[in-house]
Amino acid sequence: MAAALEKVSSNKAFAGELTKYKFKSAALGGLSANFNIFLPPNAANEKVPILVYLSGLTCTEDNGAQKGSFLGYASEAGIALLFPDTSPRGAGIEGEDDDWDFGTGAGFYLNSTNPKYSKHYNMLTHVTIELPQDFKRQSIFGHSMGGHGALTLYLASKSKQYRSASAFSPICNPTKCPWGEKAFKGYLQNGIEEAKAQYDATELIAKTTDSVHILIDYGTGDNFYKQGQLLPENFLKAARDAGHDELKVRVRSHEGYDHSYYFISTFAADHIHFHANFLKA
Amino acid sequence: MAAALEKVSSNKAFAGELTKYKFKSAALGGLSANFNIFLPPNAANEKVPILVYLSGLTCTEDNGAQKGSFLGYASEAGIALLFPDTSPRGAGIEGEDDDWDFGTGAGFYLNSTNPKYSKHYNMLTHVTIELPQDFKRQSIFGHSMGGHGALTLYLASKSKQYRSASAFSPICNPTKCPWGEKAFKGYLQNGIEEAKAQYDATELIAKTTDSVHILIDYGTGDNFYKQGQLLPENFLKAARDAGHDELKVRVRSHEGYDHSYYFISTFAADHIHFHANFLKA
Repeated sequence: MAAALEKVSSNKAFAGELTKYKFKSAALGGLSANFNIFLPPNAANEKVPILVYLSGLTCTEDNGAQKGSFLGYASEAGIALLFPDTSPRGAGIEGEDDDWDFGTGAGFYLNSTNPKYSKHYNMLTHVTIELPQDFKRQSIFGHSMGGHGALTLYLASKSKQYRSASAFSPICNPTKCPWGEKAFKGYLQNGIEEAKAQYDATELIAKTTDSVHILIDYGTGDNFYKQGQLLPENFLKAARDAGHDELKVRVRSHEGYDHSYYFISTFAADHIHFHANFLKA
Repeated sequence: MAAALEKVSSNKAFAGELTKYKFKSAALGGLSANFNIFLPPNAANEKVPILVYLSGLTCTEDNGAQKGSFLGYASEAGIALLFPDTSPRGAGIEGEDDDWDFGTGAGFYLNSTNPKYSKHYNMLTHVTIELPQDFKRQSIFGHSMGGHGALTLYLASKSKQYRSASAFSPICNPTKCPWGEKAFKGYLQNGIEEAKAQYDATELIAKTTDSVHILIDYGTGDNFYKQGQLLPENFLKAARDAGHDELKVRVRSHEGYDHSYYFISTFAADHIHFHANFLKA
């Protein structure tokens, strides 16, 4: 957050403060970018850890803050929450607003290598480097496309930036599902092959030998799960095959829950408490 | 709910089920009306009490369900939640969509006596009689205009329909604030005078001699409070003058909180637990 931040709004919540800022993002090609940050009350007196929440397709920096039910648990645990947007806004690239699952609102937390998008679509750098500079202890979680982001940013990080990762209904194996195939073919010069090395959580966990801390929740009533967009079984199998046991990679299936924030809020406390174990260790 | 209900959607949440229905509402002049209802898991085996949530200006049946953080606490307490809409939709009355604080989205939980509106704008009957027929134990709460609704429906009910009432940032003395004056002059044939008898919580508490159970929370950072739209001090003074002590009428002021759902969610648990005392007694 080197660039000058402009405060857009702030709301007191759970004795802490949620603030929306905007700034000129170098990672996103100079476009104005928004994010929300929640600081728990103890942040006034000490350094606090931060938990980054990556939202899903069509979302903004507001969905998780408004509907996730995370703030109360984060306040109690003394953890800051960072809510980035899901893509650059207003890049002006032809066709970027045509689809709900590609372009605006669908940045897929990667750095584009296709010249058409590579000036602006660099959400990986935006989320990992540009936004959270002031926080030493970091973990990451997300929903759907943001669950993909959380898992891949955690597993691909050579610097071990994040202590733990969790996800609600994540896209677990995007090189094998329609959403991922479309995104990678669009954003990446070498498409699926390029994605396998860096942007597919199932591919990454198969090659990971370090000890990991991962929690995944999904619902059996989730239509995107049923359509094969999420593929959590693939991730689970790859994790177990690579020797990550259930203490390291936990994948929980929940009878009848769907893809909505009602599902997320039901398990919000679990995820905050999971990360608190590592962020406060 | 005598008319046939059509299920619009349903979401599992906190082991219970949130369902959106629509139906042809007689109270609203035959228009299609939506509501959300949350049933806690124990509703499958026993009769549960219901807590009605009335939302504020511009809202629908979704705001409280999505942003209030009520569902988890209601699930734990074994209480159903009913989320009505805030006005009839599509009555086709000239000018009803012109203002955000009158007409569509702004029904003020009254029965209109102005012939221009009286066929459709009958949210009082809609909320108190039409929707919650299957529940014997009822309490009511709400936000802003919905806090006004909760307090007035509780205090004006001759049948003691509700066991308790609570409100976030309610419009407490609407015959003395711009929002209320505009609404009453529009919807009621005899305007402010008619409203005093039935639709002003401060006027009603002054005349109430029965024992009551009321909790009100508001924030000192609330711009509508600062502008004199809420007037909680007037309600508190009238309550104390009428002999209702702090065990019966509790009005809490919270430093720095505003009018948003971030404020509401911060105190959601308190309100559910307050009502549980009476609904489960």
